[in-house]
Amino acid sequence: MSLLTFLDYAAVLIFALTGSLVASRAQLDLVGFAFLAALTGIGGGTVRDVLLDRNPIFWIEQPTYLALTSAAALLVFFTAHLVESRYRLLLWLDALALGVAVAAGIGVALAVGQPAIIAILMGIVTASMGGLLRDVVCNEVPLVLKQGELYVSAAFAGASAGVLADYLDMPNTIVFGTAIVVTVILRAGSMRFGWRLPIYKNAPPKM
Amino acid sequence: MSLLTFLDYAAVLIFALTGSLVASRAQLDLVGFAFLAALTGIGGGTVRDVLLDRNPIFWIEQPTYLALTSAAALLVFFTAHLVESRYRLLLWLDALALGVAVAAGIGVALAVGQPAIIAILMGIVTASMGGLLRDVVCNEVPLVLKQGELYVSAAFAGASAGVLADYLDMPNTIVFGTAIVVTVILRAGSMRFGWRLPIYKNAPPKM
Amino acid sequence: MSLLTFLDYAAVLIFALTGSLVASRAQLDLVGFAFLAALTGIGGGTVRDVLLDRNPIFWIEQPTYLALTSAAALLVFFTAHLVESRYRLLLWLDALALGVAVAAGIGVALAVGQPAIIAILMGIVTASMGGLLRDVVCNEVPLVLKQGELYVSAAFAGASAGVLADYLDMPNTIVFGTAIVVTVILRAGSMRFGWRLPIYKNAPPKM
Repeated sequence: MSLLTFLDYAAVLIFALTGSLVASRAQLDLVGFAFLAALTGIGGGTVRDVLLDRNPIFWIEQPTYLALTSAAALLVFFTAHLVESRYRLLLWLDALALGVAVAAGIGVALAVGQPAIIAILMGIVTASMGGLLRDVVCNEVPLVLKQGELYVSAAFAGASAGVLADYLDMPNTIVFGTAIVVTVILRAGSMRFGWRLPIYKNAPPKM
Repeated sequence: MSLLTFLDYAAVLIFALTGSLVASRAQLDLVGFAFLAALTGIGGGTVRDVLLDRNPIFWIEQPTYLALTSAAALLVFFTAHLVESRYRLLLWLDALALGVAVAAGIGVALAVGQPAIIAILMGIVTASMGGLLRDVVCNEVPLVLKQGELYVSAAFAGASAGVLADYLDMPNTIVFGTAIVVTVILRAGSMRFGWRLPIYKNAPPKM
Repeated sequence: MSLLTFLDYAAVLIFALTGSLVASRAQLDLVGFAFLAALTGIGGGTVRDVLLDRNPIFWIEQPTYLALTSAAALLVFFTAHLVESRYRLLLWLDALALGVAVAAGIGVALAVGQPAIIAILMGIVTASMGGLLRDVVCNEVPLVLKQGELYVSAAFAGASAGVLADYLDMPNTIVFGTAIVVTVILRAGSMRFGWRLPIYKNAPPKM
């Protein structure tokens, strides 16, 4: 298995775990867990593949991905009650998945010869669309848009750093490692230490 | 017209009726009815066709589908006030559409030679995505996620039963009939008699 | 640059401005502005291209579009506080974008030889999907569905008028001009003078 394939599996698995945790918040049954795990796990990569017109889509070519998301749903269904704070676990897993999915996203785009800006965008799309679908479907406030936290910003920085490393002809391990580390550190720093970019609040709230 | 085409038309029509009923809840004008009827009616099949890279998409190849969804919108616009409980009618039509769309979904996937797991998933996607789009756009609680009811679970069981019948070399009428009957009976039983799978509620609500 | 390309750029830019204005309502950071500007600006055309199986998608072929949406985000981030009523500005820009995007949508569909009904639908899809994504992601009431206002209806009328002009072998400037003028006038008249179609309110609110 190539490193890129491995990253794709890892991102799918971790996002599937976050989807299952959201399912446990919504008190769904096991099939509901599996549905949200699949939507979150393969959502970002599916949007990427549709946009890049990659055929067949990764999980249609290799249905093992669906076995993986179902296993994640099963695991969380029977063990989530052991976790003290499921929402905190959800946030940290989501941060980790974000980094891995950024790496998988730029990896796929670079492998099919896309230019830098598209590769960066595919990193962001792969990393953010699964979680966005999860949150929109479940009526949670999308993490993507949570005020004053680095999320898309972290993915953007990580994707850019990875694409830069690729441009400098670094080996793939460095390219993907850079993307993951930059993304996760920025996201984690935002959650743990409140790192953020200046937000828009110049105007009185009259609108 | 092949049986599969007929099922596709039937699923589109019934889902379009549910979309129009939601439009009547939101007190839209006739074009709003037509928009929601089309989104709900062709949404699931469109996602399926995009994922399977079927070109052209079924309603672009055959725009009659759009005439059908518009007719459904027109019908509901002028007759919905005659219905005593529109929400109950909506639920029952949705249950029927769910079954027919599951059959259409597995039928299309099997016809293009997809393996069993993908066929089952396409059944679920075709059956659930139209209603999900309808509910997300209209800010209703998605039926897909309504706590403690069989919905995706019913579609999953029906799709699996249909694919099994296909694997046993049954004729198409049996394959599609099984998928419809299993899905609708489970969904209807859940609505009428409260059938359900165990839901997740192992943990205290601290999250 | 062809007239059609120019319209596509214009629609993307104006929709990106509306996305940025919504980002300013949600008090996001600059990357959040850029994300919403891109989602709104290229969302409708992306759905159109995926449905028509146009490859590559317009902004993957020509990444300048993304520079444009980012510039729109930057502009709004630093100047929105100068605007007295951002929501009103948002509504008027959205009305203008609606018209331009209808023209771009029917133009693309006619250029690839689609029949009239599909061209009309692609006009509506291009014009409405970007704003719909923006509103669903940000949990705003979708403008598409705002009760008793012409929105999809305006797009439908404008698209039909443009396609009719094309059928009468008018030159492209007339075709696109008709689509824009009809759409914008209907939408603006609905906002300014309360023009509307009869809405559905035949039934008691028992449901």
